[in-house]
Amino acid sequence: MAEIENDKLREECGVFGIYGHPEAARLTYLGLYALQHRGQESCGIVASDGAELRLERAMGHVSEAFNQSHLDRLRGSNAIGHVRYSTAGEVSIAEAQPFLVTCQHGQIAVCHNGNLPFAREERTRLEREGAIFSSTSDTEVVLHGVARSQLPVREAIPQVLCETEGAFSMLFLTPNELIAIRDSRGFRPLALGRLGDSWVIASETCAFDLIDAQYIRDVEPGEMIVIDETGLRSSHPLPEQKHSMCLFEHVYFARPDSLIFGRSINQSRHKMGRQLAVEQPADADLVVPVPDSGVAAAIGYAAESGLSFRFGLVRNHYVGRTFIEPRQSIRSFGVRIKLNPVRDLIAGRRVVLIDDSIVRGTTSKKIVRMVREAGASEVHVRISCPPTISPCYYGVDTPSKTELIAANMTVEEIRKFIEADSLGYLSLEGMIQATGMSPNASCVACWNGQYPTRITREAETMWERDHESVAAEG
Amino acid sequence: MAEIENDKLREECGVFGIYGHPEAARLTYLGLYALQHRGQESCGIVASDGAELRLERAMGHVSEAFNQSHLDRLRGSNAIGHVRYSTAGEVSIAEAQPFLVTCQHGQIAVCHNGNLPFAREERTRLEREGAIFSSTSDTEVVLHGVARSQLPVREAIPQVLCETEGAFSMLFLTPNELIAIRDSRGFRPLALGRLGDSWVIASETCAFDLIDAQYIRDVEPGEMIVIDETGLRSSHPLPEQKHSMCLFEHVYFARPDSLIFGRSINQSRHKMGRQLAVEQPADADLVVPVPDSGVAAAIGYAAESGLSFRFGLVRNHYVGRTFIEPRQSIRSFGVRIKLNPVRDLIAGRRVVLIDDSIVRGTTSKKIVRMVREAGASEVHVRISCPPTISPCYYGVDTPSKTELIAANMTVEEIRKFIEADSLGYLSLEGMIQATGMSPNASCVACWNGQYPTRITREAETMWERDHESVAAEG
Amino acid sequence: MAEIENDKLREECGVFGIYGHPEAARLTYLGLYALQHRGQESCGIVASDGAELRLERAMGHVSEAFNQSHLDRLRGSNAIGHVRYSTAGEVSIAEAQPFLVTCQHGQIAVCHNGNLPFAREERTRLEREGAIFSSTSDTEVVLHGVARSQLPVREAIPQVLCETEGAFSMLFLTPNELIAIRDSRGFRPLALGRLGDSWVIASETCAFDLIDAQYIRDVEPGEMIVIDETGLRSSHPLPEQKHSMCLFEHVYFARPDSLIFGRSINQSRHKMGRQLAVEQPADADLVVPVPDSGVAAAIGYAAESGLSFRFGLVRNHYVGRTFIEPRQSIRSFGVRIKLNPVRDLIAGRRVVLIDDSIVRGTTSKKIVRMVREAGASEVHVRISCPPTISPCYYGVDTPSKTELIAANMTVEEIRKFIEADSLGYLSLEGMIQATGMSPNASCVACWNGQYPTRITREAETMWERDHESVAAEG
Amino acid sequence: MAEIENDKLREECGVFGIYGHPEAARLTYLGLYALQHRGQESCGIVASDGAELRLERAMGHVSEAFNQSHLDRLRGSNAIGHVRYSTAGEVSIAEAQPFLVTCQHGQIAVCHNGNLPFAREERTRLEREGAIFSSTSDTEVVLHGVARSQLPVREAIPQVLCETEGAFSMLFLTPNELIAIRDSRGFRPLALGRLGDSWVIASETCAFDLIDAQYIRDVEPGEMIVIDETGLRSSHPLPEQKHSMCLFEHVYFARPDSLIFGRSINQSRHKMGRQLAVEQPADADLVVPVPDSGVAAAIGYAAESGLSFRFGLVRNHYVGRTFIEPRQSIRSFGVRIKLNPVRDLIAGRRVVLIDDSIVRGTTSKKIVRMVREAGASEVHVRISCPPTISPCYYGVDTPSKTELIAANMTVEEIRKFIEADSLGYLSLEGMIQATGMSPNASCVACWNGQYPTRITREAETMWERDHESVAAEG
Repeated sequence: MAEIENDKLREECGVFGIYGHPEAARLTYLGLYALQHRGQESCGIVASDGAELRLERAMGHVSEAFNQSHLDRLRGSNAIGHVRYSTAGEVSIAEAQPFLVTCQHGQIAVCHNGNLPFAREERTRLEREGAIFSSTSDTEVVLHGVARSQLPVREAIPQVLCETEGAFSMLFLTPNELIAIRDSRGFRPLALGRLGDSWVIASETCAFDLIDAQYIRDVEPGEMIVIDETGLRSSHPLPEQKHSMCLFEHVYFARPDSLIFGRSINQSRHKMGRQLAVEQPADADLVVPVPDSGVAAAIGYAAESGLSFRFGLVRNHYVGRTFIEPRQSIRSFGVRIKLNPVRDLIAGRRVVLIDDSIVRGTTSKKIVRMVREAGASEVHVRISCPPTISPCYYGVDTPSKTELIAANMTVEEIRKFIEADSLGYLSLEGMIQATGMSPNASCVACWNGQYPTRITREAETMWERDHESVAAEG
Repeated sequence: MAEIENDKLREECGVFGIYGHPEAARLTYLGLYALQHRGQESCGIVASDGAELRLERAMGHVSEAFNQSHLDRLRGSNAIGHVRYSTAGEVSIAEAQPFLVTCQHGQIAVCHNGNLPFAREERTRLEREGAIFSSTSDTEVVLHGVARSQLPVREAIPQVLCETEGAFSMLFLTPNELIAIRDSRGFRPLALGRLGDSWVIASETCAFDLIDAQYIRDVEPGEMIVIDETGLRSSHPLPEQKHSMCLFEHVYFARPDSLIFGRSINQSRHKMGRQLAVEQPADADLVVPVPDSGVAAAIGYAAESGLSFRFGLVRNHYVGRTFIEPRQSIRSFGVRIKLNPVRDLIAGRRVVLIDDSIVRGTTSKKIVRMVREAGASEVHVRISCPPTISPCYYGVDTPSKTELIAANMTVEEIRKFIEADSLGYLSLEGMIQATGMSPNASCVACWNGQYPTRITREAETMWERDHESVAAEG
Repeated sequence: MAEIENDKLREECGVFGIYGHPEAARLTYLGLYALQHRGQESCGIVASDGAELRLERAMGHVSEAFNQSHLDRLRGSNAIGHVRYSTAGEVSIAEAQPFLVTCQHGQIAVCHNGNLPFAREERTRLEREGAIFSSTSDTEVVLHGVARSQLPVREAIPQVLCETEGAFSMLFLTPNELIAIRDSRGFRPLALGRLGDSWVIASETCAFDLIDAQYIRDVEPGEMIVIDETGLRSSHPLPEQKHSMCLFEHVYFARPDSLIFGRSINQSRHKMGRQLAVEQPADADLVVPVPDSGVAAAIGYAAESGLSFRFGLVRNHYVGRTFIEPRQSIRSFGVRIKLNPVRDLIAGRRVVLIDDSIVRGTTSKKIVRMVREAGASEVHVRISCPPTISPCYYGVDTPSKTELIAANMTVEEIRKFIEADSLGYLSLEGMIQATGMSPNASCVACWNGQYPTRITREAETMWERDHESVAAEG
Repeated sequence: MAEIENDKLREECGVFGIYGHPEAARLTYLGLYALQHRGQESCGIVASDGAELRLERAMGHVSEAFNQSHLDRLRGSNAIGHVRYSTAGEVSIAEAQPFLVTCQHGQIAVCHNGNLPFAREERTRLEREGAIFSSTSDTEVVLHGVARSQLPVREAIPQVLCETEGAFSMLFLTPNELIAIRDSRGFRPLALGRLGDSWVIASETCAFDLIDAQYIRDVEPGEMIVIDETGLRSSHPLPEQKHSMCLFEHVYFARPDSLIFGRSINQSRHKMGRQLAVEQPADADLVVPVPDSGVAAAIGYAAESGLSFRFGLVRNHYVGRTFIEPRQSIRSFGVRIKLNPVRDLIAGRRVVLIDDSIVRGTTSKKIVRMVREAGASEVHVRISCPPTISPCYYGVDTPSKTELIAANMTVEEIRKFIEADSLGYLSLEGMIQATGMSPNASCVACWNGQYPTRITREAETMWERDHESVAAEG
């Protein structure tokens, strides 16, 4: 069995919460259904019936992992849920969120989208003081902090997180309250919505759309929202910071029908494509997206350039997560199990391939080869963001710097490596402008290496070690 | 648990065969992987090691149903495989193909894409003579005929099929030979390819592309191909008939990267879209496909009309085959689990929705509503083929006439039913022209009710009964 | 993974049927639950709602293979079921019974306990006439015969079986009738019972006890019973023969709480033990059964001999069907995973081990060694039937003659092989007497080689070939 | 689905550990195989390769839950494993042992047979200090203590456990050492063995027998054993106490082929039976055990009384853990799915039924009825221990006092409740004598209510609440 190839940066998680609905677990299940693209390795739901929290976690997709009897067990009108893509560390049910623990404050469940680069230091400190950890997750560190505080949970949470630089869009559930909190820089998205008399919170608004909830506004950077039987209360307990919202959400992670940071993903991508056509024109016959993520940008590129837009690569949507490889060598096999060229469209044409990123470059090379084998006379690759040169410490699964092709090669060298006739990236300015975000409120560290938080040498080294070892194993 | 809604006509099957390759079962598995869109309910492979045939069948997708140990059991260098979409009758492993039986000629396996409208009569006759049947499939009737013949298998097959009017693209496997045969009208596709020294045969050429085999030519209508250790021999043992190749393959069934009847599916669909724009223009802002099948036609429509092409409906590719429904009513829920509108694109716009067909009309109505709820000021529906008014007796799963909306309503009535601002279908002539097929060599019975074979009143009634009862149960 | 060792002769099947009960499938499930010891490889149920037969088959135990939804699908008030132990041939769902087919008489289902030694000849004849077979089972031959007959099913069945020498306790189900038939020699058991207004039929009466049905009488050798809405009718359509009821049912197969051929299994075994003590006394301290099958005879042996009865071997009832072997060699490991000696009981004692048979001798040798390693000063083996010297052609899974240790060695040679201090078998006369059966009505062919039916040289050779090849593979 | 009825006291766990063997995980798997009777709800293994601990846990039997790939992942030459029967609390994988955590001392895994009645208090104290708990298990409290200590693990363990009154036979695994410790009263068993150069430790010696290891001696009450690369070191770090070894191990829990507290279980039970015959004779025809646990005592009873020993109740060993109930009422159905009377043996006889305990009395009543329905003229029940009147706080799953029939009824009242003709219990003195244990070294609290440790009113109430709520739910 071989795994389906996917050389993409990966969001680590999606979160969903609901308060005050008789079908809380069921709607959380549907919310996770809509957020499935943010993490496919494990999923989990915790529900509260006002007295007790109950947990179900499983490996795999929510549509396969959860059945009627799971949801029936998850009694109560409040719930939170999580989908996860594992980063460093072994894939294991012990890492699946939500985490549910008992402490002096009673039961607490938590789920987290983001990353806490300094959690390791805090973890070491806590261990020295006698704490035990059941997972490798930095989220567990926060739980310890809350458990140790003599303050009530809703006061302990900001107290603990005040001291943490990092990215966190977090949901907490106790028997009687749902708490949402987002870091002061606002790295990862978190949206607030309304479904009848119930409140809902989700990583992306597409989760609201599925259940017919209304998007109200984002949970703001630095904001904490506490929902209990007395209603919703907002506060801003975290120290103010310059905002640093992740633009890669706009480039690749989020679903095109979502609003992220209050802006339409589809529109951002379309504009990136238009701007890419302006900055990086190509003398060609066809514009072809690498599906599915390159589609919106390709439409924009075609519209701006006047070139024909065509679906020259077809994606097989019936692929599982693994497949049995043939023993004989088949050209470009790994990529072909998922993507297939439309020969008669491509043959003899000069093709502009639009993709959203090049990470290691290996898949791009296979796609270029496959398109050329299908008869393309020229293959021009255009990327709807700048070269990815630095790892993300804020909740995105990036390979180590030694593996990021753009950290180690010039654009021309990358072009040669992926065997394209030409290669062009969107500029940082062009990209930011396309999203309509303020440059001062955005995190673009993966493209320019300027991290909004301090990143200690230790954190960096530790991180490199983690991610290299994974690469070595895989 | 509710099933994912899919109001489409459905291909019943896909077939794949290979002769003379050490990895026969494994390549058949990959061939079925590529043909998965032609049938998702069951799959099966029979392999021959020259002495014995071995069978593995399972419910579900080939990527989930088959594992390494299945393939290891399927020893030998020849194999045939099948993916199936059930039509009338219970969904059951007893109906999954290939069928493998023993008779006086030894072991024979068969798999079939098509339908034999008169098999019931023959079945009744055989039963009167003492035959027993293990499935409800008409394919089993052919096996009986072959088993009863004193002629060798390769002579018995055409003898039996000579007497049968119907649609069949069939593969037979015996311990020593692979036999492919296609009915004289050529209803369903069947392509021949080459992989090194091995021969491969498949319903669509996309199966060749995945394993890097070369498309040679189609198995011709009325042709039988026998492959054994002495090589490949072609003959034309079936009586000649006017060709009647299924144009719905071009409209919807086949994968866009396949050649069907030697012609590019992607190109046909693009031209259908262009022609549709000529015949059925719309005063609108955006052209939006109903993904995934409407995409190529929508690109053509946009190109011809000059309107903007946009991905205004996003498909969730993480849906399983079922989902757990909420108990509360959610607007358009059934369709929304799979399709979601991009609000900011659609809101305030006049939208042309491009789809490939309207079967019962219920899903179209939900999509139109959903698009309107997302803010579209006008919704114009354009269909890239003529109204579907007659059931197919040649291997496509169509509902009974009473359920086919276009058999019972005018276009204007349908428009009202689906709540569109306007509705336009492609003309029969326009569609045929777009495919580049000869009108004299095409089957368009589902659009004009003129069946290439006689259809007895009995066959018709029996068929209606079968398909209605299913609807009533479902 | 290694399979749990079991060097026993094995019953091939158990059957159960019920007519006229609203919970027909559910009670059949329970009947099979009680008959599970007669076959653990596959199980199946067919139920009739008066119009349609529905089938569920599965590999494995009925308690694991069947769930609520299976039983819910099996609507109707009549049902038959089957548990199976595979003999020669591959283990496959295609071989699992009941078989359900359609023919000119409509749907017919059948299940069979027994064996038809001449079915191969008839099969060859049928194949020459054009029949097709979906399994390797001889039962399918009978179905063909019935399907070919112009007579109604209830007349066709005896007509077909009249011509067949062999062992059959068979149940047939059509939409409207349940038919039970037993061969004229009565090789295998079949009992008739009553549950309220419903009729029940089963291989052993223990199936009646579980559902609180009353045992009425046996279905007699040569008798056919037809149950339909008009009630139960008995006839004797098969030619009369000398009875030949299988005594191995009494020695080993049947459950001790069953009546077989109208006699108590527990009592037979107890008396065998007593008689064994008379014929084969031992100068020893303890009588220890090889559990579970040797227990009743051991109690009898102890009672008659005056020696102490002790449970010196403990059986682990938590073993699955396979286990993961250690790579290091562990003495007697294969047997020890299931059986363990009670050291303090055995150490220093002279032990009489009571078992019901020695087939290949390999397991007996391991048990003797294990008992000696546990400290026994002497190990005397006593077997509660005569040496097994001939294969069974009537529905019992026996190895080929070359593997039957008693067919190839004297008792003294066997004693040496299994490393016992002494070895004694019960005499044929003693055994028959213990069962209370008439010597003239019993089949003892496996002990004296005198088959009640002719066994052609061809049948014999074919049989040897089948069973040797299995041994060679395994 | 209904659960298989089992009105028995239940051991909560079994543990197994091995140090210094290349097949550590595999032998642990086999050790758990042999200890499966001590807990069937979940199982788990942690292995160490000297650097890292890896964990696999699963619900269900070890033979079904573990496969080759699990064991392959569990690399290394040291391992511990656990089988568990849940007590109060939800059945959940979160409760399955071993627990594996990380703390300042690195990774630590633990598994525990026993119970710590005061863990709740300590837990509350720890929570007040900020600890978080992932399970409801008292074992986690110990882990916290160890994690908080600045001492090395091997010193921290006894320090923590010194302060705990309760029952614990515990195994700890760190990357480099295996630590076994048993409480000073020695409530639960723990045996030490040798396999070549490796050390093995297990709850019962039957685990040694399966893998051919030699029993060396028990881990003594109050003893700690540390095994690392320098060898095995023993110490007695816990305060000395009067021994209180659980006699119920001898009556029911342990396997008859095990030595517990250095004495043979089989012998104890045999002697209990003999003594029971002396104390509670019966004027009857047959002695019949309730299998499997009553067998050894019944043999003793028969031997002493001179009455005939007979297997009058047959146990169906093919039952799964659940079954599908018929909707119609069947007499004694719940018990009959597992136990069946041998009618011809019982009918007309005066039967002495030997069982090891009566807990709630409901099952006993069903068995007595079933035996009477099978025709017994009289049914005399004899129990091989005294009436169970008090709950166990030391690792046995007992119902609350209100449910223990003997806590609420006189013997005569119980006799009437279970509908027996007579009822007799073994005396406390008789039972102790039969085991050969010193009355001063035994715990008999469940029979006389005198607990070897203080049991606070709070602990008692809390316990009652836990166990009643379970009863109410179930």
